[in-house]
Amino acid sequence: MTMARFDATAAANPGVRQLQPYQAGKPMDELQRELGLSHVVKLASNENPLGLSEKVRTALQGELSDLIRYPDANGFYLKSKLAELHGVDTHQITLGNGSNDVLEILARTFVNADNEVIFSQHAFVVYPLVTQAIGAKAVAVPASDYGHDLDAMAGAITDRTKMIFIANPNNPTGTFLSTESIKTFLDKVPSNVLVVLDEAYYEYVAEHERAPSIAWLKDYPNLVVSRTFSKAYGLAGLRAGYAVTSAEIADLLNRIRQPFNVNSLSLKAAEVVLDDHDYLQQAIKVNAAGMQQLIEFCQQDGFGYIPSHGNFLTIEVGPKAADIYQKLLHEGVIVRPVAGYELPNHLRVSIGLADENQAFIDAMRRISY
Amino acid sequence: MTMARFDATAAANPGVRQLQPYQAGKPMDELQRELGLSHVVKLASNENPLGLSEKVRTALQGELSDLIRYPDANGFYLKSKLAELHGVDTHQITLGNGSNDVLEILARTFVNADNEVIFSQHAFVVYPLVTQAIGAKAVAVPASDYGHDLDAMAGAITDRTKMIFIANPNNPTGTFLSTESIKTFLDKVPSNVLVVLDEAYYEYVAEHERAPSIAWLKDYPNLVVSRTFSKAYGLAGLRAGYAVTSAEIADLLNRIRQPFNVNSLSLKAAEVVLDDHDYLQQAIKVNAAGMQQLIEFCQQDGFGYIPSHGNFLTIEVGPKAADIYQKLLHEGVIVRPVAGYELPNHLRVSIGLADENQAFIDAMRRISY
Repeated sequence: MTMARFDATAAANPGVRQLQPYQAGKPMDELQRELGLSHVVKLASNENPLGLSEKVRTALQGELSDLIRYPDANGFYLKSKLAELHGVDTHQITLGNGSNDVLEILARTFVNADNEVIFSQHAFVVYPLVTQAIGAKAVAVPASDYGHDLDAMAGAITDRTKMIFIANPNNPTGTFLSTESIKTFLDKVPSNVLVVLDEAYYEYVAEHERAPSIAWLKDYPNLVVSRTFSKAYGLAGLRAGYAVTSAEIADLLNRIRQPFNVNSLSLKAAEVVLDDHDYLQQAIKVNAAGMQQLIEFCQQDGFGYIPSHGNFLTIEVGPKAADIYQKLLHEGVIVRPVAGYELPNHLRVSIGLADENQAFIDAMRRISY
Repeated sequence: MTMARFDATAAANPGVRQLQPYQAGKPMDELQRELGLSHVVKLASNENPLGLSEKVRTALQGELSDLIRYPDANGFYLKSKLAELHGVDTHQITLGNGSNDVLEILARTFVNADNEVIFSQHAFVVYPLVTQAIGAKAVAVPASDYGHDLDAMAGAITDRTKMIFIANPNNPTGTFLSTESIKTFLDKVPSNVLVVLDEAYYEYVAEHERAPSIAWLKDYPNLVVSRTFSKAYGLAGLRAGYAVTSAEIADLLNRIRQPFNVNSLSLKAAEVVLDDHDYLQQAIKVNAAGMQQLIEFCQQDGFGYIPSHGNFLTIEVGPKAADIYQKLLHEGVIVRPVAGYELPNHLRVSIGLADENQAFIDAMRRISY
């Protein structure tokens, strides 16, 4: 036998070698293991603090028996319900294993190593990750007041630009773009460039401020709208998201999509939670109250913050942010450092239940003084 | 506004335009909807007919509350258990949303449009799908007696070959390669070419015939072993699979892997089912009995079949296979046509419970005479 000398790193695609893996929020049980804490509050991953919809819980218990079967590769029932909700055809919907999957499928369908992809500074990290994995050029446009500078982003378009990601509201800043500003932007983008409007936090936006993004698909065939069940709908652990597009784009996305990318329980839970209007309204209400609670803390204790339209508040705690993050961990409170987003003086705090928010506030006061 | 003229198909990557989506087995409720049948037997997707492990069912009910949280991106507990089972380090394991996800991550990490990927005629369709999605050249080597011709596959290696997929047992033929033949092949493959040994049906192989594939990783750093929880472990609906590799390969795969690709319930169910030894033994036993039942039917009724080491039997029903498939649907029995695998005269029948297998046999006898 000739002893093999395989150099895996040299064999990997160039973009892969430069990738840094996504940094997830610290899991609660990991912190419990590491520090021996019995009670932990996690305000780190923009999850829904309400707990699972009771209607979903009941539905899932009935579905457990069927788990030996593969999921429905076409997601017939969920797509039908989404199509009805949004007034589109089922052929315009692409389901994803979370919206992360949707964003990756989009990039892999349309972007290649010769292309450029535009997004904003401080925008969701999955945009550069999916771009670099393909070996395309990532173009991060400097933010304006922590938010997307749409004029500068339009100015960054070149002949090689294939896709533009816009997060509205944006994570991790919570900044928000008006309907008018997005429409003006869409009119400027050449028709051969895809605009992906990532609306993961859409449900938290006040109804009168929400952009009619799905209605725009008729006028802008290069537009993609993505949504998720991981935030207001409280299904982060199950993984479900979707894109609404032209039927032609959806047909292409569905060729790249893994046939069983969305698991059986996720399909069922998403279908059921769409009908649980009380749960959604309660989630929005709890979020608004918690946002107010955190803002009042910032005002009382003299912390700056980025006004947020999401289910989190990004607070300016100063140059000791990394240290404060560590001290909070020892207090049993997990928040999210955002230095990797070029926000080294901030911490992102997800809105929890009132007592969870208070646990964060109390811990901040204990460690600051 | 300039009316946009976006041509999505022209904008898609070349490999994507040529892709044909994966054809999933017909879901049971789809057939019920279409034909108004009240009772349907599905023997089409190589699922485990036993039903969910009771230990898994109990464990999942306790996990439903936590679904508002993101899954553990590192799969700490499941990886620890797999590492212990296989005598490897946790850093050698990459978790996937089913092994389909693992196969796709492998291709995207190492293969680019300049490369060639080798697999066998009649081999699992995901190999050409992931290859074409990247725009690489798919090299299908003619089969020998329905199985992999390893000598011919070694002969097909060129300077551009980056990856070779071997399915053992193979789906949809059930053919099996001996330990000796795989080892001889590995010794022939240049050290810069990855060999992916897809062992989705591993647990159905008699213990004394199983290759020591994971032990080989020490000697062959270019080897990848993939396994799944969708077959003998009965978790197809939840989506979990994994690769065991060198730590260096796993590090690269984990950069491409979506951080939350495996959902919370799937992580938990996989962890629990690994300890349910009785379930696995029962699954293997039921499969052996059902295989015997189907083979006896073939012998009695004069049908040829491909001897199978999996949880399915691919039966030669002749040039009217497509017609027989349709007639079986009307009898409420779903099997899998395999014309897309260049087996136009065969139907693949998954092994079910005794009464499900009998339902197939009875239906065949009704429609044939």
